[in-house]
Amino acid sequence: MDTYKTLREAAYEANLEIPRRNLAIYTWGNVSAFDAQKAVFAIKPSGVAYENLRPEDMVVVDLEGKVVEGKLNPSSDTKTHMVLYRAFPQLGGITHTHSPYAVAWAQARRSVPIFGTTHADHGCREIPCTPLLSPEAVQRDYELETGHLIVSTLKQLELAVDDTTMILVAGHGPFTWGKTAAQSVYHGAVLEEICKMAILTLTIKPIAEPLPEYIVKKHWERKHGPGAYYGQKK
Amino acid sequence: MDTYKTLREAAYEANLEIPRRNLAIYTWGNVSAFDAQKAVFAIKPSGVAYENLRPEDMVVVDLEGKVVEGKLNPSSDTKTHMVLYRAFPQLGGITHTHSPYAVAWAQARRSVPIFGTTHADHGCREIPCTPLLSPEAVQRDYELETGHLIVSTLKQLELAVDDTTMILVAGHGPFTWGKTAAQSVYHGAVLEEICKMAILTLTIKPIAEPLPEYIVKKHWERKHGPGAYYGQKK
Amino acid sequence: MDTYKTLREAAYEANLEIPRRNLAIYTWGNVSAFDAQKAVFAIKPSGVAYENLRPEDMVVVDLEGKVVEGKLNPSSDTKTHMVLYRAFPQLGGITHTHSPYAVAWAQARRSVPIFGTTHADHGCREIPCTPLLSPEAVQRDYELETGHLIVSTLKQLELAVDDTTMILVAGHGPFTWGKTAAQSVYHGAVLEEICKMAILTLTIKPIAEPLPEYIVKKHWERKHGPGAYYGQKK
Amino acid sequence: MDTYKTLREAAYEANLEIPRRNLAIYTWGNVSAFDAQKAVFAIKPSGVAYENLRPEDMVVVDLEGKVVEGKLNPSSDTKTHMVLYRAFPQLGGITHTHSPYAVAWAQARRSVPIFGTTHADHGCREIPCTPLLSPEAVQRDYELETGHLIVSTLKQLELAVDDTTMILVAGHGPFTWGKTAAQSVYHGAVLEEICKMAILTLTIKPIAEPLPEYIVKKHWERKHGPGAYYGQKK
Repeated sequence: MDTYKTLREAAYEANLEIPRRNLAIYTWGNVSAFDAQKAVFAIKPSGVAYENLRPEDMVVVDLEGKVVEGKLNPSSDTKTHMVLYRAFPQLGGITHTHSPYAVAWAQARRSVPIFGTTHADHGCREIPCTPLLSPEAVQRDYELETGHLIVSTLKQLELAVDDTTMILVAGHGPFTWGKTAAQSVYHGAVLEEICKMAILTLTIKPIAEPLPEYIVKKHWERKHGPGAYYGQKK
Repeated sequence: MDTYKTLREAAYEANLEIPRRNLAIYTWGNVSAFDAQKAVFAIKPSGVAYENLRPEDMVVVDLEGKVVEGKLNPSSDTKTHMVLYRAFPQLGGITHTHSPYAVAWAQARRSVPIFGTTHADHGCREIPCTPLLSPEAVQRDYELETGHLIVSTLKQLELAVDDTTMILVAGHGPFTWGKTAAQSVYHGAVLEEICKMAILTLTIKPIAEPLPEYIVKKHWERKHGPGAYYGQKK
Repeated sequence: MDTYKTLREAAYEANLEIPRRNLAIYTWGNVSAFDAQKAVFAIKPSGVAYENLRPEDMVVVDLEGKVVEGKLNPSSDTKTHMVLYRAFPQLGGITHTHSPYAVAWAQARRSVPIFGTTHADHGCREIPCTPLLSPEAVQRDYELETGHLIVSTLKQLELAVDDTTMILVAGHGPFTWGKTAAQSVYHGAVLEEICKMAILTLTIKPIAEPLPEYIVKKHWERKHGPGAYYGQKK
Repeated sequence: MDTYKTLREAAYEANLEIPRRNLAIYTWGNVSAFDAQKAVFAIKPSGVAYENLRPEDMVVVDLEGKVVEGKLNPSSDTKTHMVLYRAFPQLGGITHTHSPYAVAWAQARRSVPIFGTTHADHGCREIPCTPLLSPEAVQRDYELETGHLIVSTLKQLELAVDDTTMILVAGHGPFTWGKTAAQSVYHGAVLEEICKMAILTLTIKPIAEPLPEYIVKKHWERKHGPGAYYGQKK
């Protein structure tokens, strides 16, 4: 069991953040942690409640979707994670939640406009919403095609996963990612907060305007640009 | 007291989920657990606060509404539960709450459209809202007639209680059910989350469209269809 | 100190419910407990945070507004309580909070329509909202006149404090009452829940219709009518 | 380390109120405490999570923006605090949060109207919202110019920092202040509550009218006027 211990523990810890941050109830949502060198990821088992989860329950899956280690069935969304790791091997973790404000934007099938600096601190573009999956794609292989849909949406909008770390799947909900599993769930919580602020903004002013590009750029760059000065030196 | 011990405990545990999941304040709401073989159900006593509730306080009632065991008055909604168990003896539990988002839909007297997969995971149709009870029915026997109204609404819409586990009584609030008392309160919490997401969706987009049927079907079937693959083998 | 010990403790316990039930932050809000025989009430001291409150800090005030016992200044709203106890000596407690949903209705200067049975269980009429105080009344004696405004609004609408236990003061916030201080704060929490449900109802359906009178009456009477059957015999 | 011990502890304690009062998640937001005699302020280090914060982590900065004591980088918003202390040396503390309701008003770029007495208790004017920073100002020195923008907005509206303790920076979020660091974060929490109540008010009545001036004045003066009678003598 030792080969994937660190990976399973990273996935376990990040999964526990989902109930702690109120990003889903019961068994909903899932986080995976990826090891690019070994080409495997550890993911939450399907339908297990967070309070019963143990590190050894995490299921290790390879990039063909084969279970490499673990006795439980992996998350029903496993193939979506797999497609994303195949396309973007630089990722270290992926999170899927059913957090209500993010789901509401996905259900309204609208990208989230950049209304303020909280958003710009974490992305310099709208949070994209995919189109709906086609009947054929759903028929073929639903979870696999959800992954392809995310990849093609990012491609079409010319977005890089290093800059855009959040997406909404239309009619479904959010997927977020990061350099680590912990960072992917951080992005899940940030997305929920941004989505809440954006709904409240529309409640005050239904025709609210996005933040001008020059402020978006400034906020993004002070955290993520070449001369970033937010945080501590590492 | 031993004959109904298991039934009382199942009802007790499920009732405690109501305050834990923030589905009602003070004494509001009630859960019952049904034993089809003995043709009795255990239900919360009327007007007792959750923090004072003990397993032995649960009242055991038969399908004529007669108290079989227990010193306290049963919930004022007891006859509604009774009518539902008579009509649907395959049920193991029923939950009634006053959770605010579900009540809001009941007060607006609107069925909840399927806006997304969170809903489709738990039902393949709108969450139905009954019509208002007639003045005659209210006059006759209010709680009994509430049960009849739920049964007739399901019948008219051709909905089976195995697939549809949630309903809104117009101007009143939600009733949910399941194979066990625990599952019925799980459906109460899920309904509240779906209702919250649906209100937020309308806030973003007042003319939001429902999820296409082919995605609804896919999500419902991956959890509940013949080839269901969500969760662990049992 | 023993003469008013029970009264001070009743007021103290009820005041602590305000932060427990999230009905106000910091020092906001106040509850008083009334002893009609002694013609005095115990009330929260002004501007003291709930976490620092002790039973002996409660200030005992007579119906002329004179402090009978206690070293601290009584709540700045003391005269409002006094006027209500003078007019309605059958009351045992009064609560004033700044709970956000109730305040929103007061700020919108709208009575809360009876949209459902949660409301009807606790009142058979709209929750009234007073008009604004006149400039002259504010100039004269603001808190005293707030009490008079509540009394005159109830009188004009022909509402009795035994049936109507909640009111909104326009532009300000809620006052609730009951047979005991504990019951008055219970009504404060119920009002907040009703106000939240009513706002959510309007969000779904801006032209939501009130519950028909025959259902309102039924719900009110099953809890408060001559043949009430909710709760346990006492 | 002893010279600034009290100042660092005041800043530390006030910063911890941010997560306690749910005014920001993760590392967002910052509070500073100012010592006018020594002309320095202690501020949260940049990008450190509240749960890891220690009193000795606070960074002491002078009015030129130079770090006087501390090993960590100060908050990225340090220059905004600096400009405000330079302009208003009577302040003892400044708080910046990302609380969602206040951010929503900032993102809608609207001042918050006085809809009720909760607001009037804490300010006798609308809570102002600045205009957007110009492209030139953002280019020059973003955080410094944010401070200048706050100062010039207050000046243009003829508002004194003793009476107006809250402002919204358009597209960004709230800054609040007070005689102490603790009071500045109290104003941050009060602002969030006022902003929530104001949004809910608009949800009920999109054309809600502000409270008449004569009631605003009364409420403001009973807490802050020459004859103030709220609270205890000090």
